[in-house]
Amino acid sequence: MARIRLTVAYQGTRFSGWQVQDNGPTVQQMLEQALEKLCAGPVRVHGSGRTDAGVHAVGQVAHFDVPEGREHIPWRKALNANLSDDVSVVDARLVSDDFHARFSAVSKTYAYTLWTEHEWVLPQRRPFVWNCGSVDFAAMHEAAKVFVGEHDFKGFMNAGAEVKTTVREVLSVSRHEGAHPVEAVYRFTATGFLKQMVRNMVGCLVAVGRGKLAAEDVAGLLTRGDRTEAPATAPARGLTLERVMYPGD
Amino acid sequence: MARIRLTVAYQGTRFSGWQVQDNGPTVQQMLEQALEKLCAGPVRVHGSGRTDAGVHAVGQVAHFDVPEGREHIPWRKALNANLSDDVSVVDARLVSDDFHARFSAVSKTYAYTLWTEHEWVLPQRRPFVWNCGSVDFAAMHEAAKVFVGEHDFKGFMNAGAEVKTTVREVLSVSRHEGAHPVEAVYRFTATGFLKQMVRNMVGCLVAVGRGKLAAEDVAGLLTRGDRTEAPATAPARGLTLERVMYPGD
Repeated sequence: MARIRLTVAYQGTRFSGWQVQDNGPTVQQMLEQALEKLCAGPVRVHGSGRTDAGVHAVGQVAHFDVPEGREHIPWRKALNANLSDDVSVVDARLVSDDFHARFSAVSKTYAYTLWTEHEWVLPQRRPFVWNCGSVDFAAMHEAAKVFVGEHDFKGFMNAGAEVKTTVREVLSVSRHEGAHPVEAVYRFTATGFLKQMVRNMVGCLVAVGRGKLAAEDVAGLLTRGDRTEAPATAPARGLTLERVMYPGD
Repeated sequence: MARIRLTVAYQGTRFSGWQVQDNGPTVQQMLEQALEKLCAGPVRVHGSGRTDAGVHAVGQVAHFDVPEGREHIPWRKALNANLSDDVSVVDARLVSDDFHARFSAVSKTYAYTLWTEHEWVLPQRRPFVWNCGSVDFAAMHEAAKVFVGEHDFKGFMNAGAEVKTTVREVLSVSRHEGAHPVEAVYRFTATGFLKQMVRNMVGCLVAVGRGKLAAEDVAGLLTRGDRTEAPATAPARGLTLERVMYPGD
């Protein structure tokens, strides 16, 4: 047996997320179908974690095992020849058997892109942005600082996932220029994220940016941990899984 | 009567180009349908020129006339509320009656994006790039210089358009970084372009970049003016109409 590590990019628009499920195509399913063709038998693909329906990735990481002797197949080329236009294998490499896409991950980086002009959106950017209108970046900067560090993010987790603990450590939140002058990209790095945690943090930041919530009140939301009290979840389409980090990367 | 000038952006993927025609939706048709709703009657939209099926725009310019008294309608907002997701009005403004989107234009800028890694393409970028594999940019730079200036571009025009002259002046050809490190953007500014002239120049540059044509031979292709002798037309999806310039802009 040999283990292959993949870096995978996808445009999430038409997918029901990463994880195999009954309603609608998923990225994991696309990869497993392509591998089944190439290996003439079922192959399980393990991702670093799920991404929601409509969320994109440029650096999702996954692994799968192949019988000894098949490890030197040019997996990137072979898989890309069997994948649809909205999924691509960016990199494929042989790794040691103790590498696990999910359990070996030490941190992840997500990027969320805001479009800040209310009356129009560049059609080319529409699948990748949330048009939230104009926002107060200075206020959002104050609010973003609240998230950094180790906190119980219970109030920023949506229902539907079983987790042992809702404590996570956010290593950084930073704002960057986007592909268009009216875009703003918020980048979040953490040791791990709860279900829809990035989208809930963005929903909260934008509420602050629109003046509907004071930056000083974000700490209270975090402390009280009540999801029903916090602002609405930001749309999936603005979110991209950029990178998953492993020891030695 | 009052004249409104529009700046229009579109993702060309599903359109049969700009100009109204029988087979398939066009951008001009989308705008005219939206205006017909808003004005309760047919309105003709005049573009700066056609774009081919599959070609994108971020700065196409068009104009239309409305009866006196309707000129202060918020046209951008009103039109965007009646357009599909792949067309947006970026700007709308009242102009004098002697402005004409086509006849007043003094120059145009097109951008063509190459993806230079053979084995994979980022799905998010696929509708906007031509994956031509790795190319020799130095050789392409030499070839690009040949196009600059006033030349008869007969050999770089596809059949199907009636023109008085095939002489055009290319003001500049330059290479820029793209949205991804493996992209290269070639930007062409000219007083005017013939049918598929940019895509034919790009096809020629890439042939040089792949070593299938010597940079020294491009001048001969231009002089002899024989379309059948020149390299194949580059795909539409890599091309974007960036800007149309007018006196006083």
